[in-house]
Amino acid sequence: MAVSMDDDVPLILTLDESGSNTSAPNEELDREDLPNENGGSYDIVNDVSSPATGDYHSQQRSARHNWEMNYQEAAIYLQEGENNDKFFTHPKNAKALAAYLFVHNHLFYLMELITALLLLLLSLCEAPAVPILRLGIYIHATLELFALVVVVFELSMKMRWMGFYTYIRHKRTMVKTCVLLVQFVEAIVVLVRQTSHVRITRALRCIFLVDCRYCGAVRRNLRQIFQSLPPFIDILLLLLFFMVIFAILGFYLFSSNHSDPYFNTLENSLVNLFVLLTTSNFPDVMMPSYSRNPWSCVFFIVYLSIELYFIMNLLLAVVFDTFSDIEKRKFKSLLLHKRTAIQHAYRLLVSKQRPSGISFKQFEGLMRFYKPRMCARERYLTFKALNQNNTALVSLKDFYNFYEVVGLKWKAKRNREHWFDDLPRTAFLIFKGINILVKSRAFQYAMYTVVAVNGIWILIQTFMLQDGNFFPRDVPWSYIVFLTIYGVELLLKTTGLGPIEYLSSGWNLFDFSVTLFAFLGLLALAFNMEPFYFIVVLRPLQLLRLFKLKKRYRNVLDTMFELFPRMASLGLTLLIFYYSFAIVGMEFFSGVVYPNCCNTSTVADAYRWVNHTVGNKTVVEEGYYYLNNFDNILNSFVTLFELTVVNDWYIIMEGVTSQTSHWSRLYFMIFYIVTMVVMTIIVAFILEAFVFRMNYTRKNQGSEEDNGIVLEKEISKEEMASVIELYRRNYAASETAPLQKVIAQMDKYEQTSMLFLGRRSRTKSDLSMKMYEEEIQEWYEEHSRKEEYPWQDVFPSGSHMLSSGLRQRSQTVI
Amino acid sequence: MAVSMDDDVPLILTLDESGSNTSAPNEELDREDLPNENGGSYDIVNDVSSPATGDYHSQQRSARHNWEMNYQEAAIYLQEGENNDKFFTHPKNAKALAAYLFVHNHLFYLMELITALLLLLLSLCEAPAVPILRLGIYIHATLELFALVVVVFELSMKMRWMGFYTYIRHKRTMVKTCVLLVQFVEAIVVLVRQTSHVRITRALRCIFLVDCRYCGAVRRNLRQIFQSLPPFIDILLLLLFFMVIFAILGFYLFSSNHSDPYFNTLENSLVNLFVLLTTSNFPDVMMPSYSRNPWSCVFFIVYLSIELYFIMNLLLAVVFDTFSDIEKRKFKSLLLHKRTAIQHAYRLLVSKQRPSGISFKQFEGLMRFYKPRMCARERYLTFKALNQNNTALVSLKDFYNFYEVVGLKWKAKRNREHWFDDLPRTAFLIFKGINILVKSRAFQYAMYTVVAVNGIWILIQTFMLQDGNFFPRDVPWSYIVFLTIYGVELLLKTTGLGPIEYLSSGWNLFDFSVTLFAFLGLLALAFNMEPFYFIVVLRPLQLLRLFKLKKRYRNVLDTMFELFPRMASLGLTLLIFYYSFAIVGMEFFSGVVYPNCCNTSTVADAYRWVNHTVGNKTVVEEGYYYLNNFDNILNSFVTLFELTVVNDWYIIMEGVTSQTSHWSRLYFMIFYIVTMVVMTIIVAFILEAFVFRMNYTRKNQGSEEDNGIVLEKEISKEEMASVIELYRRNYAASETAPLQKVIAQMDKYEQTSMLFLGRRSRTKSDLSMKMYEEEIQEWYEEHSRKEEYPWQDVFPSGSHMLSSGLRQRSQTVI
Repeated sequence: MAVSMDDDVPLILTLDESGSNTSAPNEELDREDLPNENGGSYDIVNDVSSPATGDYHSQQRSARHNWEMNYQEAAIYLQEGENNDKFFTHPKNAKALAAYLFVHNHLFYLMELITALLLLLLSLCEAPAVPILRLGIYIHATLELFALVVVVFELSMKMRWMGFYTYIRHKRTMVKTCVLLVQFVEAIVVLVRQTSHVRITRALRCIFLVDCRYCGAVRRNLRQIFQSLPPFIDILLLLLFFMVIFAILGFYLFSSNHSDPYFNTLENSLVNLFVLLTTSNFPDVMMPSYSRNPWSCVFFIVYLSIELYFIMNLLLAVVFDTFSDIEKRKFKSLLLHKRTAIQHAYRLLVSKQRPSGISFKQFEGLMRFYKPRMCARERYLTFKALNQNNTALVSLKDFYNFYEVVGLKWKAKRNREHWFDDLPRTAFLIFKGINILVKSRAFQYAMYTVVAVNGIWILIQTFMLQDGNFFPRDVPWSYIVFLTIYGVELLLKTTGLGPIEYLSSGWNLFDFSVTLFAFLGLLALAFNMEPFYFIVVLRPLQLLRLFKLKKRYRNVLDTMFELFPRMASLGLTLLIFYYSFAIVGMEFFSGVVYPNCCNTSTVADAYRWVNHTVGNKTVVEEGYYYLNNFDNILNSFVTLFELTVVNDWYIIMEGVTSQTSHWSRLYFMIFYIVTMVVMTIIVAFILEAFVFRMNYTRKNQGSEEDNGIVLEKEISKEEMASVIELYRRNYAASETAPLQKVIAQMDKYEQTSMLFLGRRSRTKSDLSMKMYEEEIQEWYEEHSRKEEYPWQDVFPSGSHMLSSGLRQRSQTVI
Repeated sequence: MAVSMDDDVPLILTLDESGSNTSAPNEELDREDLPNENGGSYDIVNDVSSPATGDYHSQQRSARHNWEMNYQEAAIYLQEGENNDKFFTHPKNAKALAAYLFVHNHLFYLMELITALLLLLLSLCEAPAVPILRLGIYIHATLELFALVVVVFELSMKMRWMGFYTYIRHKRTMVKTCVLLVQFVEAIVVLVRQTSHVRITRALRCIFLVDCRYCGAVRRNLRQIFQSLPPFIDILLLLLFFMVIFAILGFYLFSSNHSDPYFNTLENSLVNLFVLLTTSNFPDVMMPSYSRNPWSCVFFIVYLSIELYFIMNLLLAVVFDTFSDIEKRKFKSLLLHKRTAIQHAYRLLVSKQRPSGISFKQFEGLMRFYKPRMCARERYLTFKALNQNNTALVSLKDFYNFYEVVGLKWKAKRNREHWFDDLPRTAFLIFKGINILVKSRAFQYAMYTVVAVNGIWILIQTFMLQDGNFFPRDVPWSYIVFLTIYGVELLLKTTGLGPIEYLSSGWNLFDFSVTLFAFLGLLALAFNMEPFYFIVVLRPLQLLRLFKLKKRYRNVLDTMFELFPRMASLGLTLLIFYYSFAIVGMEFFSGVVYPNCCNTSTVADAYRWVNHTVGNKTVVEEGYYYLNNFDNILNSFVTLFELTVVNDWYIIMEGVTSQTSHWSRLYFMIFYIVTMVVMTIIVAFILEAFVFRMNYTRKNQGSEEDNGIVLEKEISKEEMASVIELYRRNYAASETAPLQKVIAQMDKYEQTSMLFLGRRSRTKSDLSMKMYEEEIQEWYEEHSRKEEYPWQDVFPSGSHMLSSGLRQRSQTVI
């Protein structure tokens, strides 16, 4: 069978170069290219007549079916590349594919997330519960069982997708399965016994959250933390070693002083030096010996200099170094993983007839699976953006840019500069005036002055208020004046720039929301809605605008916004640690501290609650520390935060210890070390991110202001028409609507072509690409040497299990 | 006059290449090359007969005199390059030169240092003095005046050297002069009034120390701190800004709670949020509002997250970034400065006849001024090391390595491997056996085991001691056993390796001193010398040896030792800040805190001292904080250290504030910010140093273990003889002694040549040279473009003021 060498998309593209040949929706177009994948080796011309059996139509159907399979698998490869899923979990047959598609789905992800959250939130209701959320054991155990059943369902789907063997090899999933089993047994035991036993294993519930698809960032953080651990532990040992030496020394030196409770035993000596490492008992631990002999301060100064100022910083240095190194290696492996994914996908998309590239038709087929929501116009623009040589086919080299290009949002380049260009002359002039006004420096500086005056005003006003009457019945006139100014500014800017342009700037969005809040605060004041008074208090935030004035602040705040998602994921990671520790803390220490609980300990004062009468007045002497307890999960979180901040944490530790055993200290010390790890990582992360960015700006000093990635592509009317033709023949007519609209627009403005702008914000990966430009080339070369590419020449057979497996199956059906 | 083109050193060198021509101590040799510097332009052949007047001998004398002048000035240039002294302070005439030589002199430096220390130490004796060091006003004021007169003398010498105009332009010196004037006037006023007034200006005494030649590192640190300030201040403003916003917010939210003393006024609100930034009042500041409404913890958590965990780390990031940048720029400017110095020196050393390089004779003349202590053998080796092409002359390109080569310590490469090679056969075998033993892994690991067992032993022993009787009359047997083992090890190693090789390793030195201390401790125990018992306590330090086992620790500890000088200078810088703050603190707060001073304040408990009787026992309740005072300079230092550690610093602040005015808080807050700057710099420094080193090791992974810089040079007997000949003719015969010894040694071993090894430890500058290899070339090119080199072609006339000035003078004398 001779398959036609014609293809619809190439027709258009060559036409684009050679002249006018739009016509010819020829019959031949229905004959498809054969996908370059039939489980065999690959041949360009000699192979055209090979599968000569069967009638033409069934063969055509089969070819189309094969293509669909290939599209889907290529899309899956690209998704795997994007999500950094390893290829060994790639679905291998039709059953696996069905499960894969079922599992990789926002609905399923959401279910995963909700189940995990439900399981985590259960600890609000399980004893020791938050009072108002307490539920009966029946209820919460049943809820838990229900959630666990859902997890079982999720895991069985996953097993179906991965296959048993891969499932067993997948470590995270195996851990999850084990935890699931334990939880299941325990939940049933609780239901049977009608009482909660010591369930420390609840601390492991976090794994369900960590395993969620949406928590990929958390997983990465955890991996990074674990990778940074070995050097961290090394330095930690050095730290502990010095601590032991100093503890022995301190014991020998100070235990003869009987008024010194800190060094009377070796254990106390050790514990107090550990606490001293956190500085949290500092001058106190020195005082008894200092009052005896002033020179004893040397011991403490030397200890702190070595431990706190040297080794702790060393810890940071080592972690920071490891961290930067890991970041780079991670970037490298991600980049190469994506590259491999693209190679896999490319191999599935090239046709037998045209092995040197992907035609638009194939690309369209791919995008139909990869990004079903993308409209036809955007697909075509993406294809054009990939296609740098403007030929009919996208080569592998061009296709490597897939991930960079696919995220672009395309918009027609407006001919009109402002939103009001189409308005009548008078209106135009007015708006043009406003536009010039709001863009003028004078206006901006005037606004800065207003903001500054407002800030000082608020400060003075607050300073004058010394009594409790903060919220007068009448709204103060200054409030109204400033709010009016801000309102006018907002109005001018919105009209001058157009609402869309106005709100596209982060700073304007910030202004807008602060002004909105101020307005809501005004309403709250005017209508005396006390619970909303706090909004009034947010006014000083307006002052943040002043930081726009200086470049460094703009840089810092921009970086802050860029870092925000990553910071949030680090915060979530910390919360996961908190959760585990909170569960353990609740199981062991719930209810052990209460007012006046610790009167025999050294920290009695902090837990005191005395209600004594002086004269005829009742004076309450409160130490308040009994509030820092593990009585329910919310309290535990606050207590753990206090432990994280470190100051006076030993009071909490000693309080609990005095009520339980001295082994409790282990809990607090381990918690301190764990938060130290996480906090050091956070510091290292912030350092790394900022230093990276500053190096980046230093390296690209000459280049223009950073506005994200922008690409420009022109489409001619003829091209558009052919694309429409292609769609009309292959798919539903409805899909051509956006394309028709483009043509209509061209007609309206009497253009023969139209410019489109593709835009996306710059990611860390883009920056890294630019920073490591030279090294990346080396990596690529090394990679292709290792994997024995170039792809075009050798295709290892049988590696695309899915397509070939499905194809076999579909052939048996036919 | 035709000056001979012969020169003695070149003869030897060319001979080295061409064959045997050792003879000929010819008469011509006494005729010197003319220095290439007569205030005119320079010419190779045409100029040889120009100054044809005067008799031959006086001209020869004048030429020799000119050479001496040139040597001296070249040496001064090289010193200026090394010390990073700017060239505009270069001495310009004979008077200036005399002053310069007088000032640049270790005796003078020492005088400077002692005077500065005397002035600083005076504050131990001035009221408020350390009790046992109190001196009468007469005495200390007279001492001060004396020291100040010495400083006046120093400054007048400096002015003589620099000249009035340069002196005025030299900022540091001008500041010093002003401070000196003020101090002078004040000292006289004190002497006249017979009482000390509020002398805050004493805080400025530090400038005398900072200006010392020996405190160059401190000056560099200070410069670096000041250079890091602008970005630091920017971020600090951001920090303070958020603090103000939160203070207003906190005031509005919490001041209605009358049991909350932390937010009742805006000032309190601000102060407590400032303290909260240091975490030092953390759970306490939250407690009153938290006990009322648990959700109020959100305010504190948000505040701490933004301020402490984000902006403070940002501060570190910005400072770290600036710091690394400054380090690199500093390295660059130092490198270029040295290069310029070498160019200046080179120009003075080349002769008219041989403009393409420096002969050994000239080099010898230079070294006579630059390093008078260097022996003839080392000078010649240094010359050979510079002379990479092995020609007669050192070209400018070779001469650029001057600073790298001049620091090498030269030693003859031993033919014998061990110190005992020359011993009789039996002894040799015994020692060889010991040598193999101590170098074996088994022996090393056995020692590690012993050390570990010893460590565990000490720990258990200490743990078992619960009563006060730590130092039994009888020396414990375990002590003796372990000490014996260490002693035997020491003996074996010393004999096996030879004492010199043994002590050349830092680790062995450490072992040696710890064992020595243990031995001293044994003596102290055996003879019951109680004051030395603390030595016994140092035994656990032996455990540090275990850290040799792991590469990372070796790296870390090596880096630690490398960093030590720089860390010490940073510590000194911190102490200088301490000194200034201590003086100010003493002037304002001395004597304000005492037991029970602050019973009306919120921190009364910490200052309480109650002596009450319970039953028939006297119980002392002590808050101890009254010990943290500013009553004398030593107390002030301890107090300031406590403030640096930050924990509970607000107790000290509030105590002082309650006794003085609330403006006192400014002192404490400013101190906090200053130490924050210095501490951030210290952290940034440690970070930078470690990251740099780790990058370096990563970059040079393949290369051999780091043993410092090593260079090998061979000298033949004939060369040696000619050098001796040169010395004999020009200088005293005594100088040839080391050279004669070399020849004697060659004769003994019947060698015709001898190998020498030049060795020095690797400095940060060497590492930087390797790290920035490529950039350095760019810098050089840029530098030579800017300065309009190449030197060989254009010599700007009149830039060498000293030589030409002196030459003129000497010509008038002749």
